[in-house]
Amino acid sequence: MHDVAIIGLGQVPVGEHWDMGLRQLALGAIHAALQDAGIERVDALIVGNALGGNLSAQNHLGTLIADFAGLSGVEAWRVEAADASGGMALRQGYLAVASGQAETVLVVGVEKATDRTGSERETALTTLLDADYEATPGGTPAAMAALLMRRYMHEFGVTLEQFEPFSINAHANGALNANAMYRNKLRPGAFAKAPIVADPVNLFDSAPEGDGAAAVVLTRARAALDMVPQPVLIKGSAAATDTLALHNRPDLLFLRAANLAAGRAYEQAGIRPADLHLAELHDSFTVLTALQLEAIGFAARGAGWKLAVEGAIQRGGRLPISTFGGLKARGNPLGATGVYQAVEVALQLRGAAGDNQVPGARLGLALNLGGLGSTAVAHVLERME
Amino acid sequence: MHDVAIIGLGQVPVGEHWDMGLRQLALGAIHAALQDAGIERVDALIVGNALGGNLSAQNHLGTLIADFAGLSGVEAWRVEAADASGGMALRQGYLAVASGQAETVLVVGVEKATDRTGSERETALTTLLDADYEATPGGTPAAMAALLMRRYMHEFGVTLEQFEPFSINAHANGALNANAMYRNKLRPGAFAKAPIVADPVNLFDSAPEGDGAAAVVLTRARAALDMVPQPVLIKGSAAATDTLALHNRPDLLFLRAANLAAGRAYEQAGIRPADLHLAELHDSFTVLTALQLEAIGFAARGAGWKLAVEGAIQRGGRLPISTFGGLKARGNPLGATGVYQAVEVALQLRGAAGDNQVPGARLGLALNLGGLGSTAVAHVLERME
Repeated sequence: MHDVAIIGLGQVPVGEHWDMGLRQLALGAIHAALQDAGIERVDALIVGNALGGNLSAQNHLGTLIADFAGLSGVEAWRVEAADASGGMALRQGYLAVASGQAETVLVVGVEKATDRTGSERETALTTLLDADYEATPGGTPAAMAALLMRRYMHEFGVTLEQFEPFSINAHANGALNANAMYRNKLRPGAFAKAPIVADPVNLFDSAPEGDGAAAVVLTRARAALDMVPQPVLIKGSAAATDTLALHNRPDLLFLRAANLAAGRAYEQAGIRPADLHLAELHDSFTVLTALQLEAIGFAARGAGWKLAVEGAIQRGGRLPISTFGGLKARGNPLGATGVYQAVEVALQLRGAAGDNQVPGARLGLALNLGGLGSTAVAHVLERME
Repeated sequence: MHDVAIIGLGQVPVGEHWDMGLRQLALGAIHAALQDAGIERVDALIVGNALGGNLSAQNHLGTLIADFAGLSGVEAWRVEAADASGGMALRQGYLAVASGQAETVLVVGVEKATDRTGSERETALTTLLDADYEATPGGTPAAMAALLMRRYMHEFGVTLEQFEPFSINAHANGALNANAMYRNKLRPGAFAKAPIVADPVNLFDSAPEGDGAAAVVLTRARAALDMVPQPVLIKGSAAATDTLALHNRPDLLFLRAANLAAGRAYEQAGIRPADLHLAELHDSFTVLTALQLEAIGFAARGAGWKLAVEGAIQRGGRLPISTFGGLKARGNPLGATGVYQAVEVALQLRGAAGDNQVPGARLGLALNLGGLGSTAVAHVLERME
């Protein structure tokens, strides 16, 4: 098995790109990543995308994008795992290089989320839940997050205000990131008064869906140091699943998939959670962030929110998260999100994060979730020297 | 890199399963494959599916099916490459085992095609084409196949009647297969008089979409012979792409993706086309079958149809194809088709094909296409002893 390194990074700003479709968005990220890696051809193209079939009437995205990017002939396919599609695509790229079957692989996450609005977009989003048992009775991702949050508040005696520091941190970092969808800071005290999306989840609590694309180029680690000045090693790669429907979980407030995926990735990397210098978590809703911190070894059950209140998650803190704004402020381009996370962690490890830099970052985690933690993909990345 | 073998096979009959959804169909195939392999757990589940988001309002199928099959916790994801999703999922399973990251992997192809009818189904099918440049102006897969067929007839002076033997062969074999969607034989002379779908493509020319699921269990070849009496080696695995839209091809009548994928798979397997004892091709339209035979080394340009006329494709012939009925008679469950092909080739190599047996089959090819040959996945399988 070959060790695998990231040698190229690309992204386009997350936002409402009404002048671009899936292929144009993907191309922007692909060109940037290939240029960054200093190469023109790859052996395979893997596309992470959640909702192309529903929001753009376009499936078959591997071939579409390979064709449009001038890579026709190359093998290409799409990986779909809801909003964990991007992280899962990265894992497939990892497997393709690790197996020896491909020497260089391009992974692109892309989503065109804003061409449909209102109930059309909402209906598409519910295809990421259990259609028969959650979506048909009217459930949406925000409604499911609301159930989790209400239970969390009840079980652990936490108030709505105590989730605020997660969003303040995300927006503080997003304000410095030119690729972020929202660059406004959040005024302390505003959180709990924000318009309700699905009580108690509100506008400042939930991440906005946006259009976007991010790409990474992977190759064998042995060759990476000769190709680029600052490759990043994929030291651990793992994925896991939980029940798709929330009502089937024996323990609603334990993110089993996140726990399993992170645990396997730590084990492969030979690290402990405390060794990490930063983590990009899937902060689509603040309660999910708290639950992730608890599931991946940073807080006891019911205590994840305290890390935010104590400031541990800020760039100067013990475990910086959402260092470029996270899903909350950088935006949540669904099937592209996991690749954005990997790009951001890699930029941190390269020391190339600019205003968003976490000082001395050498080891980072990217944790991408699908649905309400039904799928989890974890990657431990390390600076190579 | 580990060599990879198939140790379990499962399938459900292709048809109109109005009493079953995606998860129930998948479960039938999964249980059969696990039982066949004599195991209960796997390290990963890979789902090949083309249109779940569009036809069943259900994405996130890896996790859905892992959960329903009692495999929750395992890593799982969906691979989508139009109607090549099944073959591509098999290739991902191959990469996962070859890389050493997974010891045993379950690959299931599943499609629920008949819950939507008429224009709803047709619209979903066009998401496999280029939405912006083919579907929006009104193109459908059958219409695109009609363009190819008309051009083929014009270019090579072939008549409609000369495609008939492809369908007669498929139905002759399908009639013997309990899992086939259509078990009727085709009366000689009926073909050219069949109702038109998209002139010159007619009803007896085009494969019917059906519901279905097929599954294979993969593990390291080294261990396979100790686990089951008749494992099948994946001797070659490859994929390739062509332009998504037909109008962008410099040579309309050359299936470049099929040529590249089969060529790479032959090379990896160290074989020549003439070494194969059978091939399951993607016979969604007869013209595609002729073009595949030409692209993968069995006939000169413009001469693929002659293999059918000469009887070479029959079970006693030089290169038997559609040995269980092919897409035409077994049915075309879109994203599941590639896994059915693998199951069928493996049954032949095991000598377990019953009435459909190709005598002495030891080496076979499965070639799965997405769209009008825009994606191709080729697997060379060999009997292990």
